[in-house]
Amino acid sequence: WSERQAVNAAATIQHCLHWLEELGWIGNFDHASTGGRFERSGPQFSDSEVYKLAEAMAWEIGRTGDPALEAQFAELTRRIGAAQHEDGYLNTCYGSPGQRPRYADLEWGHELYCAGHLLQAAVARLRNHGEDDFTAIARRVADHVCDTFGPGGIERICGHAEIEAALAEFARATGEARYLEQARLFIERHGRKTLKENGLYYQDDVPVRDAEVLRGHAVRALYLAAGAVDVAVETGDTELLDAVRAQWDRTVARRTHLTGGMGSQYADEAFGRDFALGPDRAYSESCAGVAAVMTAWRLLLATGDARYGDMIERIAWNVLSGAVAPDGRSFFYANPLHQRTADPEPPREGALAHLSAGGRRGHWFEVSCCPTNLARTFAQFAVYTATADDRGVQIHQFTPCTVDTEIDGARFALTVETAYPEEGSVTVRVDANDGGRRREVALRVPAWAEDARLVHPDGSVTEIEPGTAAAGVTEAFAPGDEFRLEFSVAPRWTLPDPRVDAVRGCAAVEQGPLVLCAESIDLPGGDLDCLTVDTAAAPVVRDGRVWVAARVHDRADGWPYGPARPDDEGKDDGEPTELPLLPFRLRDTRGAAAMRVWLPAA
Amino acid sequence: WSERQAVNAAATIQHCLHWLEELGWIGNFDHASTGGRFERSGPQFSDSEVYKLAEAMAWEIGRTGDPALEAQFAELTRRIGAAQHEDGYLNTCYGSPGQRPRYADLEWGHELYCAGHLLQAAVARLRNHGEDDFTAIARRVADHVCDTFGPGGIERICGHAEIEAALAEFARATGEARYLEQARLFIERHGRKTLKENGLYYQDDVPVRDAEVLRGHAVRALYLAAGAVDVAVETGDTELLDAVRAQWDRTVARRTHLTGGMGSQYADEAFGRDFALGPDRAYSESCAGVAAVMTAWRLLLATGDARYGDMIERIAWNVLSGAVAPDGRSFFYANPLHQRTADPEPPREGALAHLSAGGRRGHWFEVSCCPTNLARTFAQFAVYTATADDRGVQIHQFTPCTVDTEIDGARFALTVETAYPEEGSVTVRVDANDGGRRREVALRVPAWAEDARLVHPDGSVTEIEPGTAAAGVTEAFAPGDEFRLEFSVAPRWTLPDPRVDAVRGCAAVEQGPLVLCAESIDLPGGDLDCLTVDTAAAPVVRDGRVWVAARVHDRADGWPYGPARPDDEGKDDGEPTELPLLPFRLRDTRGAAAMRVWLPAA
Repeated sequence: WSERQAVNAAATIQHCLHWLEELGWIGNFDHASTGGRFERSGPQFSDSEVYKLAEAMAWEIGRTGDPALEAQFAELTRRIGAAQHEDGYLNTCYGSPGQRPRYADLEWGHELYCAGHLLQAAVARLRNHGEDDFTAIARRVADHVCDTFGPGGIERICGHAEIEAALAEFARATGEARYLEQARLFIERHGRKTLKENGLYYQDDVPVRDAEVLRGHAVRALYLAAGAVDVAVETGDTELLDAVRAQWDRTVARRTHLTGGMGSQYADEAFGRDFALGPDRAYSESCAGVAAVMTAWRLLLATGDARYGDMIERIAWNVLSGAVAPDGRSFFYANPLHQRTADPEPPREGALAHLSAGGRRGHWFEVSCCPTNLARTFAQFAVYTATADDRGVQIHQFTPCTVDTEIDGARFALTVETAYPEEGSVTVRVDANDGGRRREVALRVPAWAEDARLVHPDGSVTEIEPGTAAAGVTEAFAPGDEFRLEFSVAPRWTLPDPRVDAVRGCAAVEQGPLVLCAESIDLPGGDLDCLTVDTAAAPVVRDGRVWVAARVHDRADGWPYGPARPDDEGKDDGEPTELPLLPFRLRDTRGAAAMRVWLPAA
Repeated sequence: WSERQAVNAAATIQHCLHWLEELGWIGNFDHASTGGRFERSGPQFSDSEVYKLAEAMAWEIGRTGDPALEAQFAELTRRIGAAQHEDGYLNTCYGSPGQRPRYADLEWGHELYCAGHLLQAAVARLRNHGEDDFTAIARRVADHVCDTFGPGGIERICGHAEIEAALAEFARATGEARYLEQARLFIERHGRKTLKENGLYYQDDVPVRDAEVLRGHAVRALYLAAGAVDVAVETGDTELLDAVRAQWDRTVARRTHLTGGMGSQYADEAFGRDFALGPDRAYSESCAGVAAVMTAWRLLLATGDARYGDMIERIAWNVLSGAVAPDGRSFFYANPLHQRTADPEPPREGALAHLSAGGRRGHWFEVSCCPTNLARTFAQFAVYTATADDRGVQIHQFTPCTVDTEIDGARFALTVETAYPEEGSVTVRVDANDGGRRREVALRVPAWAEDARLVHPDGSVTEIEPGTAAAGVTEAFAPGDEFRLEFSVAPRWTLPDPRVDAVRGCAAVEQGPLVLCAESIDLPGGDLDCLTVDTAAAPVVRDGRVWVAARVHDRADGWPYGPARPDDEGKDDGEPTELPLLPFRLRDTRGAAAMRVWLPAA
């Protein structure tokens, strides 16, 4: 993940800054600060893109302390702050001369949504720097929101959830109970039908604590769930927490793609119905991946259940990591698991990519929510990697890193070394353990991990029972003590639940946390639609790639439904071949290709 | 089909008239006729709904001569005509004070689209009645279109095809070559990118004669194809005809559902990519069914190939017939083959149904194109039933009817008797054959028909080779001569081409021309998602229903992808049961139910 972070810093953040300037979305703040009429650029929620970029910058500054980035952040702060109204209101799309009045369109106005992203950027700044002009702007915004939407004010919600988690996090970061209470009010107001029509789309159909599953617009649903967990944890509301956990469980069991992608439906960018998980029309929006990680992370913190860490890993490696090109400058908005045709690349500059333009990454979008959302997520990835409590340290994601913390005032520091996911070995070395106290270091054991074992500091080995979610060593560690978690990352066949109709009769290959896919580039002259694979033969690793045994069939066109299959389904016909696979996240990095994750089984 | 026509006359046409009045879509013509400003009702293309209803009325008047309907038609004619401008222009949405100017928005304005439907209604009137005030209005519209869009005029197209087929048909009905030439110009202009962006959506991406498949918005694509066939036939342009035939063939082989439904994608109401045919998100719009019948019919007339008749039959019995409730007063806009949940019925009055509201028929829609489109199609269904040429008569669709025609000035009349599709027996009795000349009576033999045979007037029997598209008797018939086509309509298992990923491992049951489905009502306490069927056992008919052997499985939730299937896929587990099926067209007639056509095979 540090490579991804380096690309994020060197390329993605500056790429976003370039586009936001180019399109005038930052310039909107300059115009708004004049107090006069102006022609505004971008969609009504474009302010949020600027804030998400600010959040990415704040985390990145915390990571490296880059002074050039700090200067850019300060300049952005100045320009944003200049547009703030006297009473704290801050949005370049409403309330200025010639614009619609504030809060006239809670359904689609995105004002509280934008405010929420500003607060999340301020949380990042507080965690990485402390109070400054940026966080002062955010405080005034948060106070304005509480003044306006508190009891006796506008007792409604925003059509796009985001303010809920943001206020709760900002309350945590500032210690201001008023913000948490406002977050709680927004959570409770959902499902009270204070918005016009279409309640399911923005989760205004059923109160959060009464809902049974995540539904409607996926990003909205997941941001709301994240905020609900924050409120539940901070207020001790176990009923609310249990409700979100149950919604999450059903969503994972019935509305989630193998990649961890959520939101199966292009129409409304929404969660589809249970088991409606077609791979070729899977929307699986990148931002829904970001939002799902946010929700899973909060559930992990709330419960300690490592299975939430599994889901973060799955989404991070397969949805998020692949949503941005290796060079950090182009992005998938949607992440379907089956791309039927090899499509041309969208234009690099000038034209904005259509979100559903096909299987190629775009450089910017009309609704360009994913580039900045990915940038802020990668910049803060360290947050998702490890936690500490009074017992010790928990390692949730496997990446080379150092953990340097204080527990009860005593320093405890670790170095994690791993070539994961290429290798299934994670070594933890204790660098400091002040006072030589007994500490526990626990590592998540992925649910799919076979043959997992712990090699203790003394060289003894513990086999880990399958199904164990986390394994740890508790010792009065001395600096230099080392132990190792090992498990198999050999490629493996994965089959779907029979209720996932769209991939019945197919199999996919996973390798460690990576979902693999086939690209037509590797089947010259062949057609991925005319392929069957032999799942009786295990996938093999050769020359750094994973290979499966396959057959390519001749298939003639005609009325495609009839009394018997056109051929004997690949059992004994077709041309035998070996098909190399590649990680789903690396699709579309070698040129135009058709692609599929789920391979028809012979 | 005569029952369907009776319901159409008694219920659907009056239902449409009621809604068009209620919503003010007819009233728009009254307002426009004043020449002043008015607040217009309905979407920009609502005039076309009035014209499609007029077309239905014209055909229905031709069928029964109902004087009450004739009076309604005359009144509608008066109100429409009053809104016509001096120069022939007629559209209530543009060109009046306070409205946008004419033809300012060819992409979305639908002006030529509306004009096209007016012309098609006039064609119906000419065929069933002759010249009158209505056809005079239409002539002025057609002349205005030619004046405005001819060479040197606005050399562009309408964003919604329809004017092409309408002008060609109107040319045929009036003998006016100018209209055909204008139709030809519109066809040739498609694909020249005279519309802004989004060319694929409205088939402005590639010239008609260069395209390889039907694509973009399905109704637009099919109306355009119908117009192209008209132009090709009337101008002797075999290259254009062959191009459309090839597009149709690929569309049928790769972009058509088992029901004959076309347009697999909710987004853009569009044709999906090849083999992207998920049953649960199949859009399969009712109007695309109407348009596909129009196209197939023209191809049948152009080529004589009975396989086009097969497709008309498939669409008519499964998409069109089921798109309207048995009482003729509620409609499916989309016709997916899998409805995952039992949804509540939309409100009967007042609120307009959302087109994708789920698996229940709605009474009217915001974009309410299907009720009037279905009404006009059922009213003219006789047209699709039989044709005559100088050899004799061709029966394309099997329904009790009489055919009374003149060939070379000599009367030739038949009566067709059949209980089809309940029974696979079609009896033709000759009622008149002036001069006792040798005539051929040919009947389509459906491609799926097994054991087909002809019982000749003399009682002799000819077995029909499988794959024979049409079978006929040529004799110097005498009145009273009778012969019979017989074939099996026993229910049969149907399997998909392996490239139709979304239904891999499933089977469907067809019975004659009917696609059958399962509804959850018939599986009390069971879940259609947890079912497997035994395709080794033939479906049986008992108590007037079709039954298949099935098993109901227990399936637990959890992460739905893993190393082995949760159970042994129904081979020897699960509760055995018998599942009754019903025709797809009769789904949602017994209350809320989940439904599926494709059944997972054990």
